[in-house]
Amino acid sequence: MRPILTAFAQSPDRGRGLARDMSVRWALEEVGQPYDVRLLTFAEMKEPEHLALQPFGQIPTYQEGDLLLFESGAIVLHIAQTHEGLLPGDPSARARTIGWIFAALNTIEPPILDREAAGHAERGEPWHEARGPLLERRIESRLAPLSGRLGDADWLDGPFSAADLMMVTVLRRLGGSGLLDGYPNLAAYVARGEARPAFQRAFEAQYAVFLAALRA
Amino acid sequence: MRPILTAFAQSPDRGRGLARDMSVRWALEEVGQPYDVRLLTFAEMKEPEHLALQPFGQIPTYQEGDLLLFESGAIVLHIAQTHEGLLPGDPSARARTIGWIFAALNTIEPPILDREAAGHAERGEPWHEARGPLLERRIESRLAPLSGRLGDADWLDGPFSAADLMMVTVLRRLGGSGLLDGYPNLAAYVARGEARPAFQRAFEAQYAVFLAALRA
Repeated sequence: MRPILTAFAQSPDRGRGLARDMSVRWALEEVGQPYDVRLLTFAEMKEPEHLALQPFGQIPTYQEGDLLLFESGAIVLHIAQTHEGLLPGDPSARARTIGWIFAALNTIEPPILDREAAGHAERGEPWHEARGPLLERRIESRLAPLSGRLGDADWLDGPFSAADLMMVTVLRRLGGSGLLDGYPNLAAYVARGEARPAFQRAFEAQYAVFLAALRA
Repeated sequence: MRPILTAFAQSPDRGRGLARDMSVRWALEEVGQPYDVRLLTFAEMKEPEHLALQPFGQIPTYQEGDLLLFESGAIVLHIAQTHEGLLPGDPSARARTIGWIFAALNTIEPPILDREAAGHAERGEPWHEARGPLLERRIESRLAPLSGRLGDADWLDGPFSAADLMMVTVLRRLGGSGLLDGYPNLAAYVARGEARPAFQRAFEAQYAVFLAALRA
């Protein structure tokens, strides 16, 4: 049974693989699960048909037979729990790995998204420039301990796992910001994730959607 | 084996049960699992001994024999996965319920915390008042679809679950803000959660810590 994802027909990230279907594509590639994609315009995302699947009008959704899921974290965890290769078998290591998935999404990502949201919604406001250092300090207060914990390990807790997949996905949002420059081990960690063949396949798949939209 | 939580010795929420140990206490009470609590001062949270357990210097941590976890979402999910009563048995319903845990923490909570952070860190800034409506609109853009999806159901997806526990925990942060006033079904949902005996026991336990700190 091939699961069906929804993704942006025209991703606002200009093909950089920052939309939330990216982690799901990557997870499916890591476990070797073929999938189909249904592309949605922004207008279609706000129509009742999609809102019945995703009440917040976002992508991705994940359909696998009768199962319908949303929230990329939950979808990645579901894929990891129902396939081999993205979660350790030992129950304690598995619980810790799931802990790092939550850390990526609930501790590391919020200040990163907050800075992005300010860049989108408050760029024209008189306070935008003055708030910049504050938003960056909030991100750094999370990156510094993450960098310290990772140290010189390749991955967060043993072999590559769904936790690394999610953490790298979150840290990639900082690409071009310079905020990883002070943390060479985190920059190398992101590069290690991006070098994985499964990441490459997922990236190319979403990039092909971007190119097709450009040409249309 | 009684798990051991860490919690604030002096919670900054003045006993309102908004610190992140609350959802873990509530989950343990729902499943009838006795637990111990180790209280930490703010200074102790930043010491190497605690940072070895929780790299971001936060509470709660959860120790259960050799297993050490952090991230309240992951701890609640672990409790739900290792005890009866907080997750449905059917695999699809279980995956959907886990999806709502992520929705609570990754879709609903971020704009709520963003507004709180502004209240703490930017109250003295010249732009603080002007940004208020923007921060509230971001929260409303999440509350409106959540309210629509809940409709007149008691809980998000079938019987009470870890998803409701987490969503009510997140929505409680809006207490006193007036932001739930436009969504009577969400206000009633929060009240239903707070009326549960397990919630009450968890609330009293953290409130006792607050009262003891006041008297000390």
